Parts: sequence; C-alpha cells; structure tokens
Amino acid sequence: MMSKDNKPVLKADGTISLNDLEKNEYYEVNVSRRVDFGVFVDINGNIQALIRNDNLNGNKKVGEKLVGEIIKIDKNKNEVDMTEVGMNKYETKEKSKEINLSLVKEITSENAGELFKVRGEVIGVKTTGGPTIFTLTDGTGWTWAASMDSPGSRAHPHISAGDVIEVKGEVSLHQGNPQIETASMEKLRGNKSTEFRERMNEELEKRTEIEEVNFLADHSVLEKLENRMKNVAKEIKKAIHAGRPILIRHHADADGYVSGLAIEKAILPILKETSPDPDARWHYIKRRPSKAPYYELTDVLKDLIFAREDKMKFEEKMPLIVVVDNGSTEEDIPALKRLVEVYGLDVVVIDHHDPHVVEGEAPVDEYLKAHVNPYLKGGDSNLTAGMLSTEVACLINPEIKDQIKHMPAIAGKGDHSKYEGYIKHAVDKGLEEDELDKIAEVVDYESYHWKFNDGKGIIEDILMLGTLNRHRKLVNISWEELDEEKKRTKRAILPHVKEKTFSNGIKFNTLDVESYAPKFEYPAPGKICGMVHDELEEDSTVTLSYGPDFCVVRASEEMSELGFDLNKIITEIREDKPETGINGGGHEYAGSIKFFQGERDKVLKDLAKRIANL
Amino acid sequence: MMSKDNKPVLKADGTISLNDLEKNEYYEVNVSRRVDFGVFVDINGNIQALIRNDNLNGNKKVGEKLVGEIIKIDKNKNEVDMTEVGMNKYETKEKSKEINLSLVKEITSENAGELFKVRGEVIGVKTTGGPTIFTLTDGTGWTWAASMDSPGSRAHPHISAGDVIEVKGEVSLHQGNPQIETASMEKLRGNKSTEFRERMNEELEKRTEIEEVNFLADHSVLEKLENRMKNVAKEIKKAIHAGRPILIRHHADADGYVSGLAIEKAILPILKETSPDPDARWHYIKRRPSKAPYYELTDVLKDLIFAREDKMKFEEKMPLIVVVDNGSTEEDIPALKRLVEVYGLDVVVIDHHDPHVVEGEAPVDEYLKAHVNPYLKGGDSNLTAGMLSTEVACLINPEIKDQIKHMPAIAGKGDHSKYEGYIKHAVDKGLEEDELDKIAEVVDYESYHWKFNDGKGIIEDILMLGTLNRHRKLVNISWEELDEEKKRTKRAILPHVKEKTFSNGIKFNTLDVESYAPKFEYPAPGKICGMVHDELEEDSTVTLSYGPDFCVVRASEEMSELGFDLNKIITEIREDKPETGINGGGHEYAGSIKFFQGERDKVLKDLAKRIANL
Amino acid sequence: MMSKDNKPVLKADGTISLNDLEKNEYYEVNVSRRVDFGVFVDINGNIQALIRNDNLNGNKKVGEKLVGEIIKIDKNKNEVDMTEVGMNKYETKEKSKEINLSLVKEITSENAGELFKVRGEVIGVKTTGGPTIFTLTDGTGWTWAASMDSPGSRAHPHISAGDVIEVKGEVSLHQGNPQIETASMEKLRGNKSTEFRERMNEELEKRTEIEEVNFLADHSVLEKLENRMKNVAKEIKKAIHAGRPILIRHHADADGYVSGLAIEKAILPILKETSPDPDARWHYIKRRPSKAPYYELTDVLKDLIFAREDKMKFEEKMPLIVVVDNGSTEEDIPALKRLVEVYGLDVVVIDHHDPHVVEGEAPVDEYLKAHVNPYLKGGDSNLTAGMLSTEVACLINPEIKDQIKHMPAIAGKGDHSKYEGYIKHAVDKGLEEDELDKIAEVVDYESYHWKFNDGKGIIEDILMLGTLNRHRKLVNISWEELDEEKKRTKRAILPHVKEKTFSNGIKFNTLDVESYAPKFEYPAPGKICGMVHDELEEDSTVTLSYGPDFCVVRASEEMSELGFDLNKIITEIREDKPETGINGGGHEYAGSIKFFQGERDKVLKDLAKRIANL
Repeated sequence: MMSKDNKPVLKADGTISLNDLEKNEYYEVNVSRRVDFGVFVDINGNIQALIRNDNLNGNKKVGEKLVGEIIKIDKNKNEVDMTEVGMNKYETKEKSKEINLSLVKEITSENAGELFKVRGEVIGVKTTGGPTIFTLTDGTGWTWAASMDSPGSRAHPHISAGDVIEVKGEVSLHQGNPQIETASMEKLRGNKSTEFRERMNEELEKRTEIEEVNFLADHSVLEKLENRMKNVAKEIKKAIHAGRPILIRHHADADGYVSGLAIEKAILPILKETSPDPDARWHYIKRRPSKAPYYELTDVLKDLIFAREDKMKFEEKMPLIVVVDNGSTEEDIPALKRLVEVYGLDVVVIDHHDPHVVEGEAPVDEYLKAHVNPYLKGGDSNLTAGMLSTEVACLINPEIKDQIKHMPAIAGKGDHSKYEGYIKHAVDKGLEEDELDKIAEVVDYESYHWKFNDGKGIIEDILMLGTLNRHRKLVNISWEELDEEKKRTKRAILPHVKEKTFSNGIKFNTLDVESYAPKFEYPAPGKICGMVHDELEEDSTVTLSYGPDFCVVRASEEMSELGFDLNKIITEIREDKPETGINGGGHEYAGSIKFFQGERDKVLKDLAKRIANL
Repeated sequence: MMSKDNKPVLKADGTISLNDLEKNEYYEVNVSRRVDFGVFVDINGNIQALIRNDNLNGNKKVGEKLVGEIIKIDKNKNEVDMTEVGMNKYETKEKSKEINLSLVKEITSENAGELFKVRGEVIGVKTTGGPTIFTLTDGTGWTWAASMDSPGSRAHPHISAGDVIEVKGEVSLHQGNPQIETASMEKLRGNKSTEFRERMNEELEKRTEIEEVNFLADHSVLEKLENRMKNVAKEIKKAIHAGRPILIRHHADADGYVSGLAIEKAILPILKETSPDPDARWHYIKRRPSKAPYYELTDVLKDLIFAREDKMKFEEKMPLIVVVDNGSTEEDIPALKRLVEVYGLDVVVIDHHDPHVVEGEAPVDEYLKAHVNPYLKGGDSNLTAGMLSTEVACLINPEIKDQIKHMPAIAGKGDHSKYEGYIKHAVDKGLEEDELDKIAEVVDYESYHWKFNDGKGIIEDILMLGTLNRHRKLVNISWEELDEEKKRTKRAILPHVKEKTFSNGIKFNTLDVESYAPKFEYPAPGKICGMVHDELEEDSTVTLSYGPDFCVVRASEEMSELGFDLNKIITEIREDKPETGINGGGHEYAGSIKFFQGERDKVLKDLAKRIANL
Repeated sequence: MMSKDNKPVLKADGTISLNDLEKNEYYEVNVSRRVDFGVFVDINGNIQALIRNDNLNGNKKVGEKLVGEIIKIDKNKNEVDMTEVGMNKYETKEKSKEINLSLVKEITSENAGELFKVRGEVIGVKTTGGPTIFTLTDGTGWTWAASMDSPGSRAHPHISAGDVIEVKGEVSLHQGNPQIETASMEKLRGNKSTEFRERMNEELEKRTEIEEVNFLADHSVLEKLENRMKNVAKEIKKAIHAGRPILIRHHADADGYVSGLAIEKAILPILKETSPDPDARWHYIKRRPSKAPYYELTDVLKDLIFAREDKMKFEEKMPLIVVVDNGSTEEDIPALKRLVEVYGLDVVVIDHHDPHVVEGEAPVDEYLKAHVNPYLKGGDSNLTAGMLSTEVACLINPEIKDQIKHMPAIAGKGDHSKYEGYIKHAVDKGLEEDELDKIAEVVDYESYHWKFNDGKGIIEDILMLGTLNRHRKLVNISWEELDEEKKRTKRAILPHVKEKTFSNGIKFNTLDVESYAPKFEYPAPGKICGMVHDELEEDSTVTLSYGPDFCVVRASEEMSELGFDLNKIITEIREDKPETGINGGGHEYAGSIKFFQGERDKVLKDLAKRIANL
C-alpha cells in the first residue's frame, strides 16, 4: 500500500547511511528523545533526524512510531530534518542496499569498512556486557556477527545455535579479526536453509579431506582399516570446523587414557586455530573416563543430562560422541540406542574389544557414523585402541605425530599386547622398554586414586606429553610406591594361594581375595589375580581369584590350544545352572564373572571341573 | 551551619540538572580534572563546572573537595563557571528534586525520560561490565535500577539482596523495558522499611490470589484439602513474584518425579514472564531428588550449604523450600528444625506419607508454612503426592493443565495406588493404561542409573513433557531392557524362594537376596521383593526378602483384615528385643526393616511367629 | 637504519601525546580509516593523523603500515597532517617519554592524570567486556593495569599470571582506586626479572614481619615453637600479599575443623583489604576436609587436578598448600612428594600427629617450607592442631583474636586433650565446659552427614563464629538428636559387649560391630568403640570393636604405664605373621587396624595374648 501521496513508506535497514537518503522520501521512524523544540527520531540504528514542533501533529511519546518526510539533509553537519506525515494505515517497504552474497572465508581484515552479506549456521551465541556475538560458519571458515540491541542484553532471542541465518553489515576489526557489525540478521527456513546446509556440508567435506596417510606402524590390518580410520578422523574434523562440541569417552586404564589423550591432543590445536575464544577448550571438548569396559547406562545418562544442560545454558550444539577403547560390543548398545535413536547424536568408535562380527558387520554398526576395530578386518585385540587412536589422531592432525608417537607402545604394555611394532617410536623418544611398563602401571595406579576424574593436568605428565622433567619425577615417585605396595601385597597373599594340578596337567591356582587380600585398596582383585598368575605361571596355568559373588580369571596362552575359552564356559554354565545367576565375560583368556553369593561353591566347582576335563 | 555569608552549602544529588542551578548558589564539589587554566569540578554525576586559576585558592588535587559559588551558567553551551569559596568547616544541605513516590507497576516504557521515585525490596544484584543492576520489587512488579559507579565495579556495596531501598532517577529503555538510571539510592530502615514490607505483602497477596479451582479429579479429600492446596500455591507464587529462589526436593521414584516436575513446570513460565533474565531458570529454581523416603540430614545440610553459598556468591535471597512426596513424617523433623528454626527458611510440603495426625494436626505442622496431605482430612496414601502436586501446579498456573494432566495417572501406577480417577486424563492424551505402568517403571529404571542427579533433559521426555516422538522411543527402548532384565532376574531367583504356609492359612515366602540375587544392580532388593510377591501371591500372602542386616516386606491387601500392620510389628519387636537393633517401617503392608546382622535369625523368626499367630 | 634522509623512523608508544610531536619527524603509522579525501592513520592509540590523497603514494588498505612525515600540527583543533614517505626497508626507533620507575605503593588517587612506570609480578588477569585488567604487585602493594585491545578480548595474550612486567601509563581512578591506563606493557626476562623478584621478596619479607607474639596460652612448648609458627604465618601472609591462592586441607573432625577455620578466618580480612575483587574469597582461598588422618593420594590428586585447571581457566598462580591437623607423618609423604617434588608447590603444616622425630627433624621436613608440631620440641598431641592453628591465626591477623579465641578449647575436647590452658578463653565468651563437649560432638555429627563438603555456611555457626542465636539453636537441636541416637545405640549394643579380665588385671572388652551395631550410620565404629570404652572403663581397660577385616582399639591412660603401645603391637604382629596383611595405627592408646578378613581370628587372638601378657 502506498501513502496518500502514492509515495512508498520506507523502512531503512542497517545498511542505509546518510548518503543513501533522498529529500522528500517517506520513512517509518521511531521517536527516540523529546526536546524543548521537537523530537528526535531514529531512521535506523545509524541515522537520527529532527522533527521540529512546527512539523509535528501533537505530542509524541518516546518509542512511538510515525511516518516522516525528509525535508533537509546536511551531509557536512550530519543532520537530517523531517516533517511528520499523518498516516494511520500504511505498509512499509524495506530499503536496503543490494549486497552480493559472499563466503565467510572471503571476509578478511582488508575488508574493514566494507558492507558484506553472508549466510552461516550459528554455532554459538555469547551475550557480553556490550553486543551479543553470534559465531557462524558456512564451512569455509568462522566469523562473528556483533549485534547490539541494548548493552548486556541478548539480541535476536529467537535465533539460537543450529539455526541458519543471513547477516548483512559492515566489517570491522576486533582483536585484529574481521567481524560483522550487524545491520540486519534474518533466520533462513525451508529451501534456503536446506540448500545452505548442503553447500556447507560440501565445503566441510573439502576442508576435512585427509591427504596424507602415513601410518606409524606397518601392520596389515591398519591398511585394511584405512578407510574406516579416515571416516572417524573426518567426522571429528567436521565437528570442530562446524563448532560442534566433542565428548570423548574412554576406558579408565592405560590403553584407554592413551586413546583419549591422543584424540584430545589432535583436536586442541585445530580448535585453537578455528575458534579465537580462549575458553573454547573448556566448552567444546570434554574427556571422561569410564570405569566399566563398556559405555554404561550410568555414564551415558550423565553425558546426556550434561549435554542437554550445556545446550540450554551455553547455547551450544549437541556434541559429537567419540568413544575410544570402549563402544564396540553388544553391552554398549543400550547407551548407543539412547544417544542415537532417542537424541539423534552422532557417535564414532575406536575400539579393540571383540565386536562379534558377523559377515563383516558388527551389531553396533547400525548406530555408528564410523567404527574402527581390528576384528572388523580379521585382526584382534593386540592392535589396541591406543594404537588405533594414535593413528587416527595423526590423520586428524599430522603435526602432532612427533608429540604422541611414543604413546601406542605404552598402550600396548598396559593391555599386554603382543604387537611390538610401535616400540621403536618410544625408543626414538628416549623411552626404554621397561619404562613403558612402568608408565602403564603408573597410569593405573594414579588414576585408581583420582577415581573417575579426567586427570587433566597430571595424566599429560605421566604420558610424557608435558615437561620431560616432571614426567620423570612423577613416574619414578609413583612407580616406587606402587612397586613397594605390590611387593608387600604379594608377600601377604602368596601364602594363601591354593595350587593344584589336574590330571590333564593344567595347573589351577585359586585365591580367596575376600578373606586374604586388602579390600577397596590398590591393587584391586583383577590386578591381584594378574600378579599371582605372573608369579606362579607355568605352561597351561589358570589362575582364579574369587570374592563372595565374583571371580577374576587369567589363563596362560597355551590354554587356548587346549580349547579354553572363558566366554564359552560362562555361557555353558548359565545354560546348565541358571539358578546361579552367573554372568560376565571379557577376553578368551582373561575376564571376570559374577554370580549369586549363595551359589559360589557350585559355580567354582563347575568351573574347575570343566578345566580339569579339557 | 551556614556559610560565612549565611548562604547554605548545597550538595546536588543526581536528580539535579543544569536547569536547576542558580547563580550565586554555593555547592560542595569534587575536583575531577586539572588543566592548564584551572580545574574542572563535579557538581554531581551530570554537571561539571570550571574554576579558572584566578578563582582558585592554591593548588588542588584530583578528588579534593571544596566549596564553589556559581558565577556563570551558559545553558546553550552547557557550561558552568564557579569561583572557590574558602571554607573549612561547614555543613551541607542536600539539593534534590521533589518527586512523588510511585508504584513499580506505574513505570512503563512511555515514561522514558521522566524522573521517578520508587521503593522496593532488592531481589538481585548483578555486576556487569558497565553499571551494576539492582532488581527490585514492591509486589506490584519488577523493575531495574542501573547504577554506574565506575564500569565493571559493584555500585553501592552496602546494599544487598533483601534490603529495602528508595531509588530516584530518570527512566530509560533497556531492551524495550523501562529501567531507572539511578540518580540516588538509599537503604530504608526501621519504620519505613517495616511499613514498606507490609504494603508489599498486601500487594503480593492480591497478585497471588487463586481464582479458579477446578480439580482434575473428583475426590472428596481434594475438596477438603482445597484451602491447604491454595496456601501452598500462594506461597510458591509469592516466592516467584518476590524474587525468592525455589528449591524443590522430591523423593526419587515415579510419584516423586511427577510431583517435582509438575511444580517445576508450573513455575517456569511465570518465572520467565516475571524475570527477563534468561539465566533465571538456573538461578531461581532448582530440583533435587532424595534417595530416602524422607528429608535426610545429608540432603538438608547439602541444601543449606549450597543455599548459603549461592546467597553469598550470586547475591540471592535464601530459597523457599518445597518438599514433595516427602516431608510429612516425624523423620523429616530434624531437617525441618534446621531449615526453619535455625536458618529461618519457609517450607511447604505436599506429601502422602502418613504424618500420624493427632486431633487434625501433624507433628511437622509447627514447622511448615503450608502442608498438604490426604491423612490430614481422612484420606490415605492412595491419593498420591504426584496427584496432589499436579493439582497444586494447576492452581499455581492453570495454563499448564493440558500439558501435565496425564502425569497423576503415572504417579498412581508408580505407587500402586488404588485410586483411578486420573486415568481418564492420560487416556485423553493417548496413553493406554499399560503404558502408564511402563512409564512409571522406566522412571525407576533410568533414574536408578543416573543416580541422584535431577535427570533434567531426560525425565521430561520420559514423562511425556517434551517431544512425543522422543518420549515413545525412550520409553520403548528402556522398557524392553528393563523387562528383559526383570525376566532374567526372575528366572534366576525364583528357584531360591522358600514357600511355606502357616496353620492360619497365611502363605509366607522368603528369599535370601544376599545369597541369591544380583547385588548393587537393578532391580534393587525392594523391587525384587515386589516381583516375587506379584509372582507368587495368593490370598493372604506375605513376602520377605532379606539381606545380612535388613529385610523388605510386602503383604497382600487381605492381610490387613487379619490385623497385619508392619509398623506395629516392628514396634513390638523393638520393645521385646531391643538388643536386635531393629528399626524401620513404611506403609502398613509394605516397608523395610534394619537390624543388627548378628540378630538376623532372631528377628526373622520372631517376625514369622507373629505372622503365624495372627 | 636511518631513513633515506638520515632521519630516524619513530614509533610512538602510548606515553606520547600530541604535545610531544614535532614537525618533520618521521613516524611509522597504521592506516585506520579510508575517506574520500585520503586516509587517517594511527600514530599511536591516542593520536590520529590525516594524509590527504595528494600526499599518498597510491591506494592504501586499512591495517597497512607506512612511514609518514609530520607536516602540520594544530594543537587547538587536535589535528595532525602527514605526508607519506616512500620507504621499503627501514628500522624504527621507539619514541617514549622518560618516566622514572616507581613502587606500586607510590601510586595513589592523588596521582590521577600523571604518567607512571612500575614493575610487578602479574597475579591475575581478567578479561572484561571492556579492557583486560592485569593485577600486579611488587610486594609493596597491588595495582591494576587496564589494557584495551578491543573490547571484550584478552589483551597481551603472551603475558600471564606469574610473569614479571613493566607497565607505563596514565593513572586514572576506578572505583576510587588508582589504576594504570596501559600505554605500554612489556614482559621482563633474565636479569631484570631476577632482580625484580629479589627486591619483591625483600618487600614481602618486610611487610609480613610478625611483630606481636602474645600467645593465648602459657604452654612451654608454644614458646619453643614460636619461630616455626612465625614461619608458617609469614608464608601464609606472603602468599596473600603476592596474590597466590591458598588451599587449606584439614582433617574432618572437630580439631581439624577448628584448625582450618582459624586459618581461614585470619586470611579473609587481609584478603579483602588486599584485593578489591569481591570474588577473591572464592578464587583465592579454598578449604577442604580430608576423611583420612593423613593427606591421602585421592585428596592430593584431586587438589592438583583442580589447581592446574584453575590456573589454566582463571589465570591464577599455583596455590600455597596449608595442611592442618594432618601432614606430619610418613603417610603424608606420597602426597608431599607429588606436590613439592613434581609440581614445585610450597607446603606448610600445622599438626599434632606424631611425626617420629629423629634428632630434632621429622621425615616430612625435607618437603615443607615450614612445620609446626609439638613433638618437634618435646611436646605431644595434647597440644592439638586446633590450638596451634588458632595461635598461628592470631600471628597472621592479631585483630581476629577475640573472634576465635574460644575455639582451641573446642578442639581440645574433640581430641580428648588433657591440656586445659585454653578453657578460660571459652569461658570468657560465655561457654560452659560441658558446652565445649557438645560443640565438638555436634561438629562430628553434622559433618558426618554433610560428608566431605567443606560445610561453609554451617560450620561457622556450629563453632560460634557467626550469629550467637543461630549457634545456640543449631547446637541444641543437633545435640539432642545425637545424644538420643547415642543412647539408643548404647542400649542396643551394650548387651553384646563381651567383658573379660586377664590374670594381669587388665579388663578387655570386645564388640563385634559387624554383627551388633548399625552399619553406615552415625555413630561409626570408632565412635562406638569410644562409647563402650567410656561406659565400661575401669583402671587398665582395653576396648576393642571389630568388623570382618578391621578393628578399632581404645586403651585407658593407665595402660601406657603397663607398656601398652598400639603402634608397637601392630608392628610386632606384622613381623610375626605377615600373612595376616595387618596394617594401621594411630596414637599409642587409640587407633585402628586393618587385616585380611580370613585372618581375623588369628589377629584378634594374638592381640589379646599380647595384652594378657603385659
């Protein structure tokens, strides 16, 4: 609808400056201040005009809208005069400068002072004491749109993380970085949004291309896993570039810590480069150790609750979940179902626990964006999660290779891996082989005491990712203590071990850890079982340490030739004697079993009988 | 005291502008800047004057006070000239504009630019990068007084949350909301403060009037509890309007979660409307589940410690405590004593645990501002806390009725309530009756795993307060798991149940859960007892599952006709055999008992004998 | 290198103002804005110059560097004109005002507007919505340097807490305090830094001199410990003045809480005076109770992880560790090694546990900056940590003496000390002797329930450091409950105590707390043992309460005359029977023992035999 004079009523957006105004144009304006001689009105956030009392129809309130006609423009004095046009009903026409759409990466500090228009996905919103800062990306880079509503308040409250927006405004420099002083900000919907997301995804694909593959070790399974490893690396890189937080979940043992730290170390420098926010490392990346050898319900529910709270509180996107040294087995499925099916999160896994592959596929695969596991390509758990994660870390960020290349050897020692292809890299960095053992044990010992904290600030020193001097002191001090403690424990428990040799020649050692070992102290029952086993092992030995309702089992390598498979035995007993409540498992030759306390004797006798009859 | 010329020495407060000055007036001023030709002095925060060197007695330091006489006022140039008046001792007289006292609600955006004077209680103080923002209310609404001392510093450090203040200043617009630019701010004491508080309370009473009472169910006890329910609703509404934080404590089972969520859901929209602070929901409302079926010391001490820390850290008031599905019994009294008698907090309770009413009064009543419990009006625990809390939630905020009306039916299933009056509302929202059971069990199962976290972000989905799709997926996934787990557990434990029939025909089932059930896993002993009972129940059955120092009991409804009352039996055994350390209770027909481990046989035999002799 | 005209190319730092410029000087400048008629360039952050198109060689970009010659200076209009000097290679010469180096304490509000140069160690960095604020000290006081890069961004990212810097700039007033508006900020290295630190340390030594020593009690060991106590007090004072955070670790019993609170109360007023940051008390001082009677690995690792995270997150220095009522024994050494040897922290200890002094030195001494313990000077544990800490607190801050002087008497009651020299101060403040007992028990009871939270906000009330009224109500309410609970427990357990008298006349009481006491409830086994002992004690009595793998022992004073020493007995059994896994200790006459569950009978019989044979 035109005004009574058939002139359009214009509404100037933030791209309009004094130079764009013309005499006799009509504008919708807002009263901003009343003075003795008239009122000042805002044409937009940049231009103020004066309407003198003579040119006003009656009193005006601050905030009132009216239509004004431009009657004088003085560019030198930066002054505009208007006269009120009495109109009740009218439609407005947006007056805006035509600006071409640019890519985010095209905005550089050299463009300061120029008008730009870009589209991007909002990846963060920060309310400051001054303007609200929207961080956005279109996949080609990040930029910031500063939007001042009134100082300290959240501008554009209807726009939040995950939305696609179009921003126009002048580029200014903020801390040397270009930033858009928002003249207008609009949420895109429907087709515009879909098209944008497709293009953004293409850009991300390009930017996260893995160019160089140069494995640290020469293991045939690595090559077969190459594509899968690239996929995990790409998902992680895409998350960083797209401003998606990353949550790393890892098993709380030496192999798990190596896995988690390798990925974390690869991410941090890219994150720092991508996001100038010094707090990014606290918001965008979290690492949490898991007690159980799988992603327990307790852990996943905590992760979901925290992620949803962070999303609401800090205006973040929901995270990418990276599970390392866990995540591959059927026991992980309840967690994955909640993450993926219910809450639509993306999950990637690097693990070496047996995923029970059937026809090249693991049962967990249907929930995962990407999955690396040696069993998927004919390998086994000797290629540990820490080894695989370090390789993936180097794909993500090849520049950290020298910094982390000694870690797979530590992971291997922690998990008693027979694969020795990584030891040379540790030797390169001055670590003797017995030091690797010590470091792995120190990870166990220290992390046992800091419980399920992430150990940030200490674990780096243990794993030789920080100061060398500190690393050496900490490992020596800790090793001396734990070695002493193990020796003392061994002296006290060995007299209580019962040794027996079956007629088939298998040696069977048992220890009642409830009665003859320290409780709720380091070393834990699993560790004790290993210590006893290592001490008393001959060919074909099985060692079993038991409590009132559980036992831990370790078998010599030779036992597998005799057909010993712990998981199989557990399944058989469960079928024969369901009333024992038996449950558990692990590797073929090492694992733990739970049963009803009242059925302990029945379970242990049955177990012994099966071993004696191998 | 007058000046030597008998002229008063004035001190201009922030309401004084250049127009209010007159030639030859004396003012106390502060030196703000030294220049070559003299010093600039501040008459108040808005007006600066110049004293030229000729008119100064000697050198001045920045910050120094002196008395100046106005010798020239140029309103066009906004300039004032003064000459120093040499005075050592003098008294000052405040110069201020007379402004009428207004109510907070009278300040609207139309008043921008006008001077206002209001009184209010401070309900929050926020130090920003710019001014300090005081939030205040007089019961008629909230407003904000911005006070700039120097950017980023806390203005008026002697004024804090809970104080009554009088503020004068010009109204400006901040994010579209009116705000007072503080010209003066004064703490009121004594009578002025008392009178203010009385008037504020009257205003709050008016604003929190419950108009519409329209219960979801047609239960006679609801009507009798109407006034008590209104009281609880009013206390909660008053707290929101008065800017008092609210802490909801609820029992950590399905009935408790429903109770807590209903109240939370009622509060959030009002809070959002009342407080423009987007972080209000994190500061002003907290919900915490309690493991015990009463308000344990551990819980209340944590609440007190956190509340006092928040008060100090975030300049908040102490919270209103809302206890739901807990809080009515003698076991709650230690917590209430600390909250109410020691720290002077207000507590309201909605519960359905038996408060042991004597002459219409419960022992906890003396500590509570308001108390809703069916036993107070002849009802019983079948009208569960979740039902009552949902009704109260609708009184607080009738607009959420449709959103939450399906929840009482879930609460009822969770607590095995026999009252079915709420099921129709769940059916209305598309929930079949067997789904209600599932949802209640899923609350149990999931919350068992997230431990004593509040479950925010997930519990809403379980209780169908969020996306329908997510609700269905989560409940189905969780239900399948828990159902499988229960079936597996049942298969394993049933062979260990000992069934016996006494000569009086009562069937007595016992299970040693220490020996024949999984430990520290779902389902917990109480749940196991229920499963066994439901499986084996015939007329007059008692099921008992015991561990080394505790047992859980469930009895059929028919048992009450035979005079079975668990609480009574416990009391009798305690009196007969105090050396057993027996303790515990619950409902008549279901509860748990603790005793000394060494006295287990004595206690169980005695218990069996009493049942056999009914 | 000179310019082609042999004129130096100057680079003006922030101390240069328009008045310091001269015609025809060459300056390196940055293009800040392009206009139709030329470009504006920045000479420094304060002075802008214009280069008209005629005087420019081609187009310039914003941010581009060039060399300009001054061709006109108009001081009235504040305008400078330049012409570009075409130079490709040149070196610049810093142009700066000569300013004398001042001490921080010399900057006062009277210096507003003057230029200052100071050196200081950075003790905190705060990024605000406006400038970044660097807090610095040279030991003579604290000051602040505000540095604006661009609003909201972290200025000088290469300068962080712990660095030594030199700052120049004009003094302005911020909240009445002087602050430097940074014109230049430079990190000092090498000699300059070392010299500075030496001078700073001298200043700190001077400022933390303990003048008045006036002990509350007249105990000979106090005098002998005077120098050590002064050392602890000085380390703490130095930490406050140097902006180093302080972490107090104390044992979680009444003596420990008194110790921790006394030190905290001494620090807070000094901290408030030193640092104007209202959040200082949350950042700079933390207090954490420890469950174990020594500094466990679990505790120290948590402390280290948090300290390193705080350092990274909040740009703080690593803390001074103050261990009270713990820290003196060999069991503390693993913690101390990590803190001191690995992470280079400073630790001071006030304790009364026997440090096993050899030739005047305790084994822990090599790790400590200062150590107070009565055993170091021939005293014993009757002079408790709470007494010693209160004395040290008064050395730190004599003004709080009246506020805290009643606390040592409470500490004494808590630890059953026989030294009564402090009781008079409690009586002075209106506390009867039996109230002291009650307060000590209430600390135990309440802190048992708030677990290992620090109890802030409640512990002050219990210890009568807050409102008297609240103190009385809380102690009474709590005491009534705990007394009732103890009586009830006593009634239930006494029938199960087995009393025996050996032929040597020693009375030996035993109680199986696993079988005949409440578990995981107040009172804990140690407390129960004490209750039984106090109830049944005659001359020469030993009371022992045992669980499956532990026992707690209490002996009458007379037993020491008979040569009873618990620690000795434990050592002997460990040597005789290592297979029992025996471990533990405490005081001579009270402590706890752990052993393998399967060896309990062997241990208890051996123990009894040794007592019977004394």
